[in-house]
Amino acid sequence: MMLRSAHLPLGFVVSPLLRCNTRLCSLVSLPAIAPLSQTDSAAVCPQKLLLCTPCPRSRGVFGAFRMSSGGRDSSPDVGAAPRPAVAPPAFQKPKICFCHSCGNPTKQVVPEGEEKIRAVCTACGKIHYENPKMVVGCLVEHNGKVLLCKRKIEPSYGLWTLPAGFLEIGESAAEGAARETLEEACAEVEILSPFAQLDIPCIGQSYIIFRARLKTPHFEPGPESLECALFSLEEIPFDSLAFSSIIVTLKMYIEDIKSGNLKFHYCTINKR
Amino acid sequence: MMLRSAHLPLGFVVSPLLRCNTRLCSLVSLPAIAPLSQTDSAAVCPQKLLLCTPCPRSRGVFGAFRMSSGGRDSSPDVGAAPRPAVAPPAFQKPKICFCHSCGNPTKQVVPEGEEKIRAVCTACGKIHYENPKMVVGCLVEHNGKVLLCKRKIEPSYGLWTLPAGFLEIGESAAEGAARETLEEACAEVEILSPFAQLDIPCIGQSYIIFRARLKTPHFEPGPESLECALFSLEEIPFDSLAFSSIIVTLKMYIEDIKSGNLKFHYCTINKR
Repeated sequence: MMLRSAHLPLGFVVSPLLRCNTRLCSLVSLPAIAPLSQTDSAAVCPQKLLLCTPCPRSRGVFGAFRMSSGGRDSSPDVGAAPRPAVAPPAFQKPKICFCHSCGNPTKQVVPEGEEKIRAVCTACGKIHYENPKMVVGCLVEHNGKVLLCKRKIEPSYGLWTLPAGFLEIGESAAEGAARETLEEACAEVEILSPFAQLDIPCIGQSYIIFRARLKTPHFEPGPESLECALFSLEEIPFDSLAFSSIIVTLKMYIEDIKSGNLKFHYCTINKR
Repeated sequence: MMLRSAHLPLGFVVSPLLRCNTRLCSLVSLPAIAPLSQTDSAAVCPQKLLLCTPCPRSRGVFGAFRMSSGGRDSSPDVGAAPRPAVAPPAFQKPKICFCHSCGNPTKQVVPEGEEKIRAVCTACGKIHYENPKMVVGCLVEHNGKVLLCKRKIEPSYGLWTLPAGFLEIGESAAEGAARETLEEACAEVEILSPFAQLDIPCIGQSYIIFRARLKTPHFEPGPESLECALFSLEEIPFDSLAFSSIIVTLKMYIEDIKSGNLKFHYCTINKR
């Protein structure tokens, strides 16, 4: 199992498969192609110190009152944005206050046979579940450069990002990633391979990033972008990137390119 | 890029990265470790005939009226179940009839600046988005065998499955997969690596399956399981598996084991 390191801005931590309890979190890229025996022998989750920042998450934080980051508004990874993405459960207003089936008020209770607090309708008894959202996007390669979009919308207005957005019902992750790229950069792309899954539990999001390439060399800003441009790996504006997930993705990509070893990455990002 | 084939039961089709328009769908496993040049040279989505069944999905099916498979009730992949998972949009009752913020009725409209029909509150104007759900699970390996659970709940009562369920807010996919394994098989596992992502757009689900191993050789049925057992690859009861996603996952796993080449797989399952 290979360890990867990255120089990340302070303010968030990245962990391997399972979040470390020591608050010393690390980033690991998993070998997706490995003989069973080889993988087994290296299975004990390796830790490599990446950042030594206080990790805000603690045991027991997985309570049902934790809310996702809100509706789909092309604003993934809002933890990097000014909007309040994650607040302590005790102070967080329940998101589902009324039953969307019958319109009556809900109450926060632990349903029979379950362990977590859910919003349950006081009239019809319907249990309302909230689940993480998938954010899908493309790392578009073209002549050794990657395509970035400068955001025309909040959060992170004016910062650069990979084209990405929330997956819709009825499409696969690859289809959603291509759609977002078309919407944000007017670029038709061909999906090459899955590149990374980055879970951000504290805001209820999971990024699925695909490598892709332009079908034609055309791109231009869509309605949600101020500008679109190709950057060589040395030119990537790391001090002006919109989201932690994009920083991590691009850092991993650069390392892979440098090593000549592109692979699938899985990691968890714990943001403050 | 390697092509993988599998003998799957009729009734659903599996496609590679992008769904094929020819209705001849195929299954491809992506090389997650490959030099850029190698991957690029083989990027044109290869097709290998796997099943030649009519594909029920067509262009334009990505409308906003398509609904997800419903609440979280430990019943992923309901397309294999008797419950009505997917109905034609025209006949499907809108799921979000009332605003969960203020309790007033919603209407189905295309919000300004968007292209899809959404449930929008007639009083406060809140737009209600619906997104696919992530199902996370473990392929637990032990002495050359895999751990399966016989379902004690509907759908697919009495059929075998990998321990899996809906990802919760506040946990990573790997944590969720380990939790589900603990709940369904009372087994503490160590996550080894991501094994597969299987999107099922027609029911709004995406499976993320991890390879894992038992921390101790203990397991027993949890509240939602009738029985848990280890199966050698030759003993897997393919005629009694609960969900298409589980069939596909196990077929890919067997092929990988036989070839001595375990890798990460991404595919889309189109169910009838």
